[in-house]
Amino acid sequence: MTETEFIAALRALPLHPGAHGLLDDAALLRASDDTLVLSTDTMVEHVHFAANLPPADIAWRLLAAALSDLAAKGARPEGVLLSITLAGDEGDAALVGGLDAALRHFGCPLLGGDTVRRAGPGAPRVHGCTAIGRATHLPVPLRTGARAGDALWVTGTIGAALLGFEVPETAPNAYRRPEPLIAHGVALAPLVPAMMDVSDGLLLDAARMAGASGLAVAIALDSIPVPQALAGEVIRAATWGDDYQLLFALAADAAPPVPATRIGAFSAGTGLSLTHAGRSVPLPDRLGYLHGG
Amino acid sequence: MTETEFIAALRALPLHPGAHGLLDDAALLRASDDTLVLSTDTMVEHVHFAANLPPADIAWRLLAAALSDLAAKGARPEGVLLSITLAGDEGDAALVGGLDAALRHFGCPLLGGDTVRRAGPGAPRVHGCTAIGRATHLPVPLRTGARAGDALWVTGTIGAALLGFEVPETAPNAYRRPEPLIAHGVALAPLVPAMMDVSDGLLLDAARMAGASGLAVAIALDSIPVPQALAGEVIRAATWGDDYQLLFALAADAAPPVPATRIGAFSAGTGLSLTHAGRSVPLPDRLGYLHGG
Repeated sequence: MTETEFIAALRALPLHPGAHGLLDDAALLRASDDTLVLSTDTMVEHVHFAANLPPADIAWRLLAAALSDLAAKGARPEGVLLSITLAGDEGDAALVGGLDAALRHFGCPLLGGDTVRRAGPGAPRVHGCTAIGRATHLPVPLRTGARAGDALWVTGTIGAALLGFEVPETAPNAYRRPEPLIAHGVALAPLVPAMMDVSDGLLLDAARMAGASGLAVAIALDSIPVPQALAGEVIRAATWGDDYQLLFALAADAAPPVPATRIGAFSAGTGLSLTHAGRSVPLPDRLGYLHGG
Repeated sequence: MTETEFIAALRALPLHPGAHGLLDDAALLRASDDTLVLSTDTMVEHVHFAANLPPADIAWRLLAAALSDLAAKGARPEGVLLSITLAGDEGDAALVGGLDAALRHFGCPLLGGDTVRRAGPGAPRVHGCTAIGRATHLPVPLRTGARAGDALWVTGTIGAALLGFEVPETAPNAYRRPEPLIAHGVALAPLVPAMMDVSDGLLLDAARMAGASGLAVAIALDSIPVPQALAGEVIRAATWGDDYQLLFALAADAAPPVPATRIGAFSAGTGLSLTHAGRSVPLPDRLGYLHGG
């Protein structure tokens, strides 16, 4: 598709009123007395998705990753701005179809964005999504708010996306169609001093929360909820990403209002430590995905 | 640089309070009773910039392009979210230095963003910028607001960026260091029914404004202000992009409050028509840059 054809196709998607029919370079957002939550996610072909991933799945994962960051702040999506690389082939129309399906599923309208062509026929596609949401509770739970003595909890299971990626028939949607946990995030936001989503690997993300909060965190590997098929591979599950579960700190004597599992605790100090059946376990060489370098 | 090193370097840049030290995936923006203006721009190596453009110039142009969209809506910059491809070489540090210089020059803090690595050593770098501003006047002038009978005006000169690109010594900063015309945009916003920036070529952008407004537009080529060195090449100047001047509609009997030149008029109908010395001139094959397809 050409840029003109692509933008014309985008006009049939659910549009935010502030998108003004995508007839302008800029989108408008009327804010009343709100705190807006903003997050940008970028996906690179060969790095974040395989060249043969269907465009509809690429679209879904792009939106889900950005909306998951809003979920982790207890924010409801207001709209997204997209940056799309046109491939110039039939995949472009499939991508529009996928964006349409995902926006409708997530109840999130398109605010605006930009399209670019790629540097050449073989150049990797790079897509970006900036998601804007409205906070439902103040203060917004950041990564920085965990307190010594808090427990560490995680929703759902860890490793479902890994399983869905490697053995699609066992978990057909876990990798290709992740669900941003907006309702869980809204329910948790008033109760949790710190929250983030698990996008780069549970161990890495937990270490980041501890680091941002100036604390140490200990995780009991045998408490991490993994799919049955990964029962013997908890380290691998906990260092893979893409699960988009919510990871949060909670006072030691509190119970969360959503299905979740207590997997560790914060304490004074620094760094991540692991145990299994009560015994110390060395850290793996790699805690998760680190991009660049 | 690794992702960790790069983000550490970004922490030394002017940060928005809502960036929370870049310790979180999401940025927070406290909105009072405002209209926010949002725009995303993406730059692809080999498409939007040459591989040998210094990283500091890439950084400047990335920010200027996004902030120019805010200028065209009469909005003042509130902050930017960046999406940066790490090259993994010494250019990464130079890019951070360029972002720092540009953010300080534009008086615009960093709100957040994302970093990705490229698919391979030779893969083109792709950088994105989502700019968020606060409108200074309602209604915000869109592309859609021109009225039959309005005159078409443009600020500055058209073709300066082309000249700066082809003959850098004559216009050293016009291509590499464009200035988003924020103050001009703020001054114009209360007076103009339609406004946009000239990023893809004057003729193409004027045709877009006319199309979005459901009108025809006629432009007198001999009235377009071009640099002396391009006096015989007005079509080439008016189909090149990157000038980031402001193009606006204005009531026929009004004068703008900023230096600008009247170059045409809107009327009922559709399409772009050109004249030179009062005589009709055929349209060039290409009106400006169209990406994709």
